Amino acid sequence: MTIAQAITELTQVLGDRLTTSKSDLDLHGQSEAYFPPTPPDAVAYPRSTEEVSQIMRICSAHDCPVVAWGTGTSLEGHALAINGGICVDFTKMDKILRVSPEDMDCTVQPGVTREALNTDLRATGLFFPVDPGANASLGGMTSTRASGTTAVRYGTMRDNVMGLEVVLADGRVIRTGTRARKSSSGYDLTALFTGAEGTLGLITEITLRLRGQPEAISAAVCAFDSTEDAVNAVITTIQMGIPMARIEFLDKASAAVCKAQSGIELAEAPHLLVEFHGSETSTAEDATRFGEVAEEFGGTDFRWSSKPEERSALWEMRHRAYWSTLAAHPGCTGVTTDACVPISQLARAIEDARKLIDDSPVPGYILGHVGDGNYHSLLIIDPNKPEDKAAAKALAKRMSEQALELQGTITGEHGIGMGKLPLMAEQHGDAWSVMGDLKRTLDPQNILNPGKVVQQNG
Amino acid sequence: MTIAQAITELTQVLGDRLTTSKSDLDLHGQSEAYFPPTPPDAVAYPRSTEEVSQIMRICSAHDCPVVAWGTGTSLEGHALAINGGICVDFTKMDKILRVSPEDMDCTVQPGVTREALNTDLRATGLFFPVDPGANASLGGMTSTRASGTTAVRYGTMRDNVMGLEVVLADGRVIRTGTRARKSSSGYDLTALFTGAEGTLGLITEITLRLRGQPEAISAAVCAFDSTEDAVNAVITTIQMGIPMARIEFLDKASAAVCKAQSGIELAEAPHLLVEFHGSETSTAEDATRFGEVAEEFGGTDFRWSSKPEERSALWEMRHRAYWSTLAAHPGCTGVTTDACVPISQLARAIEDARKLIDDSPVPGYILGHVGDGNYHSLLIIDPNKPEDKAAAKALAKRMSEQALELQGTITGEHGIGMGKLPLMAEQHGDAWSVMGDLKRTLDPQNILNPGKVVQQNG
Repeated sequence: MTIAQAITELTQVLGDRLTTSKSDLDLHGQSEAYFPPTPPDAVAYPRSTEEVSQIMRICSAHDCPVVAWGTGTSLEGHALAINGGICVDFTKMDKILRVSPEDMDCTVQPGVTREALNTDLRATGLFFPVDPGANASLGGMTSTRASGTTAVRYGTMRDNVMGLEVVLADGRVIRTGTRARKSSSGYDLTALFTGAEGTLGLITEITLRLRGQPEAISAAVCAFDSTEDAVNAVITTIQMGIPMARIEFLDKASAAVCKAQSGIELAEAPHLLVEFHGSETSTAEDATRFGEVAEEFGGTDFRWSSKPEERSALWEMRHRAYWSTLAAHPGCTGVTTDACVPISQLARAIEDARKLIDDSPVPGYILGHVGDGNYHSLLIIDPNKPEDKAAAKALAKRMSEQALELQGTITGEHGIGMGKLPLMAEQHGDAWSVMGDLKRTLDPQNILNPGKVVQQNG
Repeated sequence: MTIAQAITELTQVLGDRLTTSKSDLDLHGQSEAYFPPTPPDAVAYPRSTEEVSQIMRICSAHDCPVVAWGTGTSLEGHALAINGGICVDFTKMDKILRVSPEDMDCTVQPGVTREALNTDLRATGLFFPVDPGANASLGGMTSTRASGTTAVRYGTMRDNVMGLEVVLADGRVIRTGTRARKSSSGYDLTALFTGAEGTLGLITEITLRLRGQPEAISAAVCAFDSTEDAVNAVITTIQMGIPMARIEFLDKASAAVCKAQSGIELAEAPHLLVEFHGSETSTAEDATRFGEVAEEFGGTDFRWSSKPEERSALWEMRHRAYWSTLAAHPGCTGVTTDACVPISQLARAIEDARKLIDDSPVPGYILGHVGDGNYHSLLIIDPNKPEDKAAAKALAKRMSEQALELQGTITGEHGIGMGKLPLMAEQHGDAWSVMGDLKRTLDPQNILNPGKVVQQNG
């Protein structure tokens, strides 16, 4: 058995940092999504790039699958070891290797979480802006091309990863990118590995762009009569060039559960949550201009928060929306969708999604990073009812197809993992087979996170 | 002769849009750089993606090299047909296919120039921000991952290309990216083809992000006692988060030729040229804050231009700096360098570059997009003196190596072409061989712009 041979050799390298204990395997066989658990055969805890390189050399010698693991918060089953093999848990590679305040960049190991990085940065006046809600690892965020509430201003991981160190399938270690702000030097390997979900190599170092903590921040919440009004306010705000740091949508149902769980007073109506970063003068001006736009589209119940604790409560409420919604349905689990469309299509997309949910047997909530045209629905299923899961999966598929019809994408920020694989051919056509060609070039044995992103045997 | 067979078949497809006239071949055998002319065997002028696909099918059947051509303004000999073959001139694919003001994006054919696009956009209130100076084609700008004066605010082509249509080496047509603002759907093929210099496929459509024309613009020019003072003012400005739309450096020698050619009054000193985009209030605030920073570093001779004609004259002067410098040396040609370093290293890099020039037999001028850490030197050579060319090439190589020592890149925006190929191994190590693997996967016959970016036989 080749996997068994790999485990034997890995134990010689890693000692007790290679484990086959049932609890560890079970933990690394789970995901936040609805997929059945698929534990790996062993879990490795490397401490260095050199150890990761040794892992890959051993695993390639024995055709043993390798799946990278950050914090396990991905939503499409990215890190499930569906062919077994070794789960490489990066928890022990959690060092911030360098912070250069004068260049506003840093280099971290993949196991550093975004909150740990921001805590470390506090005294420098800098912060790392990408914020997917969960306290994900930066390796995982890089691998899924994550984004979140602040992407409308600061971009996604694509825009904030400057360079990588990557261990290839055969154990070779390469570096991509540079510390310069831009480069026209050859193929953009940084972008190729960012979002590759661990199928092309294992990321062992990440160089990230940082930003200055804004001098002033103001946030607001505002209710609208309809989704259309709220979305039209967003479109107008963007077209006017008002620089939003966040602009989030909650539908009526989401507002109700958020209100119930957070205690923050919200009307029974669709809401926008916004935040502006800048100087005292510019945020005040931005806020005034946004207020005028919102009013034009019937925005009411307008409340500004300039106090940090009020703002924290507001974004805590938003970040907890997923868990608040589940808490409102005891015993249930969620299926999350993640479409992204051109912003002119957003009102239509959200209204169509609402109708699809209303016509289905499962309850659903819609919210999203509307400044990017990215919206999620959280569909609630009873794990004991197979018909619920089937209905939710059908809904999710339909919403993805609708995003494609509107010239958008089946995933704005969650990635492909297992969940979106059946839609890749529809989205990409022949370009998906090009992805398969690239995969075979960089991982000819198909040992890096097999069964994700590209066709299993394609 | 396989190229001859390809030409015969291409003539059947393209009629008189396939030419072998000497004047056309000579024109497409030249470059802006110091390389000897290398004319192709024929020039093709396709009108559609389907024709480009036919060209690739015929050329792959006959192992015939294919080099894409935009406006011929690249600076490293990117479009030289060093193995002969067909030059595909995209001049007749110059349609703006779609502009969607509400989504702030558009789709263009590769032969559209950036000025043609901006002229077309004028009535929409939008503009395309990437500005390399030359009126390059958008296909060429995509292929070299171009940037220029505004990248500090609006990013490079990497940040502004949302999707592509690409004809592969075998004639297949694929689409990459979507019209959504972000996507986590599979490998980032858009980024892979952007900056690939026509070595992985021929770009036939480009979807671009657009921006709102700023409500207010203010620009200024300011002199400093030393390069160090000027660069330190830039670093502080960036760290304070003052949102510059442009921030350009001219050294003393560049300022002198710009003054002489443009008639704009400049002191004999290093200068910064800056521009702010925003509202009336925010640009006024940004200007005040920048003025305070500049003053702190001894900035003098400060002049603001809020009138459009004054601003145009200022940026016209900057854009013409290359030609102004050559005009000051009649009969001479230029060798342009293009390093980019972390901004903390910029003052040192520019001062070292100055010393290298002063110790060499050729005159040189330094200027650059300093907000990105990107600087150019223009080295003046007499084409009749081989020793000048040798000295300039040695200088350019030394400046590239220095950029690598400072954790930067050998090219910030000009690309690899022929000129930077000898430095690729030094910059990328094993990652360069990965680039070669990707090239062989997408172009196994090595017919797409052979001899550029990757090792010729590697």
